[in-house]
Amino acid sequence: MGEDTRRYGELNPSPRLLFGTGPTNPDPRVLRALGLPLLGQFDPEFTAIMNEVSDLCRFVFRTDNRRAFPVSGTSRAGLEAALCSILEPGDRAVVGVAGRFGELLAEIATRCGAEVTRVETEWGRLIDPDALRAAASRARPKAVALVHGDTSTGVLQPLPDLVQIAHEVGAVVVVDAVLTLGGVPVETDRWGLDVCVAGTQKCLGCPSGMAPLTYTAEVERMILGRRRPVQSNYLDLGQLQAYWGPDRLNHHTLPTSLTYGLREALRLIHEEGLEARWARHRRAGAALHAGLEAMGLRLFGDPAHRLPMLAIVEVPEGISEAGIREALLREHDIEIMGAFGRLRGRAWRVGFLASNAELRHVLHFLAAFEDVLRDAGLRLPPRAGVEAAMRAVA
Amino acid sequence: MGEDTRRYGELNPSPRLLFGTGPTNPDPRVLRALGLPLLGQFDPEFTAIMNEVSDLCRFVFRTDNRRAFPVSGTSRAGLEAALCSILEPGDRAVVGVAGRFGELLAEIATRCGAEVTRVETEWGRLIDPDALRAAASRARPKAVALVHGDTSTGVLQPLPDLVQIAHEVGAVVVVDAVLTLGGVPVETDRWGLDVCVAGTQKCLGCPSGMAPLTYTAEVERMILGRRRPVQSNYLDLGQLQAYWGPDRLNHHTLPTSLTYGLREALRLIHEEGLEARWARHRRAGAALHAGLEAMGLRLFGDPAHRLPMLAIVEVPEGISEAGIREALLREHDIEIMGAFGRLRGRAWRVGFLASNAELRHVLHFLAAFEDVLRDAGLRLPPRAGVEAAMRAVA
Repeated sequence: MGEDTRRYGELNPSPRLLFGTGPTNPDPRVLRALGLPLLGQFDPEFTAIMNEVSDLCRFVFRTDNRRAFPVSGTSRAGLEAALCSILEPGDRAVVGVAGRFGELLAEIATRCGAEVTRVETEWGRLIDPDALRAAASRARPKAVALVHGDTSTGVLQPLPDLVQIAHEVGAVVVVDAVLTLGGVPVETDRWGLDVCVAGTQKCLGCPSGMAPLTYTAEVERMILGRRRPVQSNYLDLGQLQAYWGPDRLNHHTLPTSLTYGLREALRLIHEEGLEARWARHRRAGAALHAGLEAMGLRLFGDPAHRLPMLAIVEVPEGISEAGIREALLREHDIEIMGAFGRLRGRAWRVGFLASNAELRHVLHFLAAFEDVLRDAGLRLPPRAGVEAAMRAVA
Repeated sequence: MGEDTRRYGELNPSPRLLFGTGPTNPDPRVLRALGLPLLGQFDPEFTAIMNEVSDLCRFVFRTDNRRAFPVSGTSRAGLEAALCSILEPGDRAVVGVAGRFGELLAEIATRCGAEVTRVETEWGRLIDPDALRAAASRARPKAVALVHGDTSTGVLQPLPDLVQIAHEVGAVVVVDAVLTLGGVPVETDRWGLDVCVAGTQKCLGCPSGMAPLTYTAEVERMILGRRRPVQSNYLDLGQLQAYWGPDRLNHHTLPTSLTYGLREALRLIHEEGLEARWARHRRAGAALHAGLEAMGLRLFGDPAHRLPMLAIVEVPEGISEAGIREALLREHDIEIMGAFGRLRGRAWRVGFLASNAELRHVLHFLAAFEDVLRDAGLRLPPRAGVEAAMRAVA
């Protein structure tokens, strides 16, 4: 019982290049920060770090909200914290469902006891504002939940019009910016996002395990004025804000090492500047999209609203989706991802996020991808991808 | 809006000695593991690491349970995952409340919608088996939740008799072993614990952010046979076990770096051996308790059931509780903790956990503690604490 005579060797991970949709490779400075000695959670040195993390969150979210801090769980913990802190059993919510992560928002809201109205659209397309208006007018929801960039479809959903529709019926808007924050503009205040939730392992360039979020004073009043307690203790934003705020009310033991890593990742963004970072993601994405299309591959989703840092690549006839991923991993230490739902087995998901959003990584990927596809029997114009990628950013 | 012209300096945490009740200082090998390059979550190298982490969890929990893995949140996330996955609205639960963390179990169970019966006892004392039997017979609960070692009181609660009482009425037992796992015997299978939950930042010697737990096949059937879905997506053990098990169903993005750290921390325990580790904690605790008592200080709680790795030290008349903690931090880089609830301001909480459970750390602490107490005006026999500590382990 519990006997274990096995040997457990030293950890020695292969130097993978994470060219999927997250986690991405953190900058070496972030990895180094993770290994720093711990401080106690109420040590004045550590609470000063927490305050800096909040300030840096406000910076990346482009907000003056008083409340901006990470939840101590991965991005879906942040989404659930937002939804379960706002929604009470019987409340109505409208959720835009245009991919896997819209489904997730609808599922979480349902588990919170809300009556959920789904505004669905075909994968790869935008949420239709008229459909949202109709659903919101009928349901008069407390909250409207929307995904900004869905990694299952590669589509970037413009938000300002949808936010206005939600506000017209008095709903607060909860936005999943897990993929997009730090990679494309996310204008929390300018667009009127009431709650905005991110993940660390995508364009912020940190390992997963925390979920930065921010919300307005109105949402704070909503949370503090609930009729009944939040169903979760761990994800209760009312308790979390009392821990992150000046009262420092004891809650969980903040993951010290991840907090260090997040601070360093946010500090890197602050040094680079958001506009420069968005431009870098756009440039890498332009090279990627041009390269893949020059190779004769088809990209999924509405081309007018493609996420710059991702490509959802349709698997050509006769090629094994999993086989190509395995070959890339085995021969090139490159990881890309398979797809979800109705795209499962029919598409690859490729991404260049955070410090990976660089031309050199895109060129490396295109060259390696071409070779494994050719080895699998696909006929491709030699180096057309690399050539087009170079030209796209010349 | 979101403008930020501040400077954020390089992280450079002071070399604190964390002699409170957790987080503790991780072994340097654990810190190093945290900074290793990331693997993707479905990379075969990484899923092999996950399997090793599960095996090592079984080893430290002393169990043959099929289900043993960490929840991706701090210890209270693990406790909530257990309770919200088992309890459905209207279910009955009996909770032993003998300190702050019994209160927490009761609060979480209530938020799950359960009808909670509290079996209370004065802080510092054990749960009375007769009181538990009476409550369990009346309530016929689905679950009985108990704290093994409560850091708010310093008391170690013997479990086997209480488990038997719970089983006699057909309840499953959920145990909070957050503090104790890796520090004192926790015999999941031998004692019949149906669910056992730990934290990483205490006697396992890892930064906080994950919560290893294990549960029996009976509990698994209970979870899979629920009438309605778990109210949380993030903490749904049914989904988490499908991700940790051979099906590898996609859920959240596992915190890669913390998983590395946890594996290394568990590997250190495996190398040391559990019996040797328990003996080391006992020895450090014996030195600590003898030293503090020789200094004329009073320890809180039933002396027959004191946690070996902790001391709850009553603040002497005329001494500032916070002032002593501040002096220790400022002059010695030593962190100890204040107390909760009715002990707030009246006791310090001191602990030597994981790699800190060493005589040399105890001696250092006793010498420094004596000096700051003397500076604050307390008259103490010179070096009586150090002398008694040395003698206690001679």
